[in-house]
Amino acid sequence: MTRVFVDVGLSLDGQIAGPNRGPGNPMGGSALAIHKWMIETRAFCEILGRPGGTPGPDDARIRAIFGRTGAYVMGRRMFDEGEVSWPEQAPFRAPVFVLTHSPRAPWSRPGGTTFHFVTDGVDSALRQAKAAAGGKDVRISGGADAIRQYLHAGAVDEMTLHIAPVVLGEGLHLFEGFKPGDLKLEQESVASSPLATHITYRVVR
Amino acid sequence: MTRVFVDVGLSLDGQIAGPNRGPGNPMGGSALAIHKWMIETRAFCEILGRPGGTPGPDDARIRAIFGRTGAYVMGRRMFDEGEVSWPEQAPFRAPVFVLTHSPRAPWSRPGGTTFHFVTDGVDSALRQAKAAAGGKDVRISGGADAIRQYLHAGAVDEMTLHIAPVVLGEGLHLFEGFKPGDLKLEQESVASSPLATHITYRVVR
Repeated sequence: MTRVFVDVGLSLDGQIAGPNRGPGNPMGGSALAIHKWMIETRAFCEILGRPGGTPGPDDARIRAIFGRTGAYVMGRRMFDEGEVSWPEQAPFRAPVFVLTHSPRAPWSRPGGTTFHFVTDGVDSALRQAKAAAGGKDVRISGGADAIRQYLHAGAVDEMTLHIAPVVLGEGLHLFEGFKPGDLKLEQESVASSPLATHITYRVVR
Repeated sequence: MTRVFVDVGLSLDGQIAGPNRGPGNPMGGSALAIHKWMIETRAFCEILGRPGGTPGPDDARIRAIFGRTGAYVMGRRMFDEGEVSWPEQAPFRAPVFVLTHSPRAPWSRPGGTTFHFVTDGVDSALRQAKAAAGGKDVRISGGADAIRQYLHAGAVDEMTLHIAPVVLGEGLHLFEGFKPGDLKLEQESVASSPLATHITYRVVR
């Protein structure tokens, strides 16, 4: 059965991106350190069409995350940042449903990624993504706003946090605005690699 | 050789205590959820002179943390909060050096805890704690201010974070005021139990 999941790198102070991020600087500079475990894998280099990267457990992890995903939901800001920085062969190789207020025709990229622009809300985007996932899982890609909306809506089954040994200071807090009890989590699995601790939580509803 | 360590529970949004904490409410209410892994152990109940608690890996962990510690350094606010809530047989069973501006004679409690009040600064408190530790380790107990001061001073060798499956919202951010690069950490070990993920970092200097 299709599961809806979040999978995101996190600093020890609960942030997923640095300050001053925007198109051309999607991570906000210093926050690249959060994603080092991912950036250095061969799979991630392949996805971006670059040479290099190393094999190993984190590489296998990245392949598994992309492999299980049949469709994506993405916030408009993440899309805007990615539109100017992803390679022509965008990294998703699956349908991506972008939450936006601006209608736009679907945009297909070489390699199998098609962006669909959804103007009638988060429920509709998730419903379309589930229908398009072909029995695979749906990933709420980000950014933080989109993840927060789906968590608050009780629509997420599983959340994996890749906790990097990094303190960011200023930046984008994933759980901004949450109150105690808004989110009930149970640890499902924990794994570690030298550059991150990977914790998967079940979201209890 | 004596190591200086920090060992503290953390929410997924980087907090170690809730809002509205103070004497009589040391954790600030909602933040008790962060420490559930610890509170439910037999060792912790024994330390507080209560019946109950369960054995298991978290119990062994608590015993190891207390067992390795020859002396403590503590902020005044944590002491003030504890003074009214610890049992008469205070939980440390070792010398505790309290950072304060108010001179006060040492205060010995049954069971082996003696609080020493240090008015000449953080370096002096740590020096005294190291000398008193008898070859065991020194724990910077907390609160957040004291931990931050010793981290910024480059005086901490090791930091263990017990990451609870909890999002707190409002509260006390452990790493408030840090900037990228203020703290360089390397993962040393990772373990998990149902109620927390325990990560030990080496502080790189």
